[in-house]
Amino acid sequence: MKMSELSERSGVPVATVKFYIREGMLPRGEAISTTRAEYGDEHLARLRLIAALADVRGLPLSRVRDILELIDAPYDDPIATLGSAVGALPPYVESDRQDFPRAREAIEALGLTYDPDFTAVAQLDDALQALEAAGLDAAPSVLRRYSDAMLRIAADELAPMPGMPRPEAVSYAVLGTALYEPVMLALRRLAHHHLLVTAMDEGRLSEEKPASV
Amino acid sequence: MKMSELSERSGVPVATVKFYIREGMLPRGEAISTTRAEYGDEHLARLRLIAALADVRGLPLSRVRDILELIDAPYDDPIATLGSAVGALPPYVESDRQDFPRAREAIEALGLTYDPDFTAVAQLDDALQALEAAGLDAAPSVLRRYSDAMLRIAADELAPMPGMPRPEAVSYAVLGTALYEPVMLALRRLAHHHLLVTAMDEGRLSEEKPASV
Repeated sequence: MKMSELSERSGVPVATVKFYIREGMLPRGEAISTTRAEYGDEHLARLRLIAALADVRGLPLSRVRDILELIDAPYDDPIATLGSAVGALPPYVESDRQDFPRAREAIEALGLTYDPDFTAVAQLDDALQALEAAGLDAAPSVLRRYSDAMLRIAADELAPMPGMPRPEAVSYAVLGTALYEPVMLALRRLAHHHLLVTAMDEGRLSEEKPASV
Repeated sequence: MKMSELSERSGVPVATVKFYIREGMLPRGEAISTTRAEYGDEHLARLRLIAALADVRGLPLSRVRDILELIDAPYDDPIATLGSAVGALPPYVESDRQDFPRAREAIEALGLTYDPDFTAVAQLDDALQALEAAGLDAAPSVLRRYSDAMLRIAADELAPMPGMPRPEAVSYAVLGTALYEPVMLALRRLAHHHLLVTAMDEGRLSEEKPASV
């Protein structure tokens, strides 16, 4: 396809496509004349990945570049490759700590794997600290509500991965992590709303409302 | 307690506490002399709420103010009150649309309640559009994976609410929505990591790795 079609199908403006090519993030097309290059599906997939990370999730270009490098040249260790790639996604936790006792305790209580180099450990530590500061419950019995649900979801999400070539697996993991997060959060709020509306319709909320309110 | 203790227990610097008082976001303490005021647990709870929203989740002060106003003067309709309060949380979707066909279709397929005034509808619409642009699966069968899990979680989360006075219920809903989101997202990534490490240890990943990778 021509660059104009690549732009149209990806929703990325031509000037931005050219910028990504200049920056080495998107490979050049195959030159078919002095003024025209031809682009393939691999360009479209790459462009969609960059747009999803940079435009939709708002990642800094340096983080997008880190992810592209891991796709193009994964480490020997697939877990470390996926961990680094997903670790380039927000939220960004500034920390040079080697251990996260709060997260470690929770992760062990939940039967998950504690690896302080995996950035979600620092993210969980931060999130648990925020709960405690706000006086909310961070006991394992409450956390299990979330971890059980996430294990079921994660098993479904990982199912297609074993047969994938490494670069595709990295891309799938990063995109899937980044783009289903907002879906899940919106659905949680919609579930609250739905359950409240249903309870209200059935008179369960208003009956129990204290007279003082 | 004195302001110094209020500051210490909330983790909010004294200068910031004074700023919130000047801005009318935190009530003044009870004056017990010309130079001293006494603060109670209700001040501490309010300060923790403000800090969780402004510092931890990074909400603009105008949004924090909107939430505080809904706590202090809820609408007659509890669903509308909760909807507006939770709607002051990110992600912020700029839209003056009256209908969201993409989200509507998904919400109806999932058996949830479609109310275009509830901001999570616009957030879901955005999130689904991002999935489609990136070529990821947004079919109801895939979305159900998330909505089923969220309905179970939401039912547990709402359980303590029916007996709560309205202002406390609004505060609980906003804090719970805002502060368990990062917990859940970190646990999803940890669930992926745990399942991959387990599969790797059992040789299930390496065996199926294509020779070309």
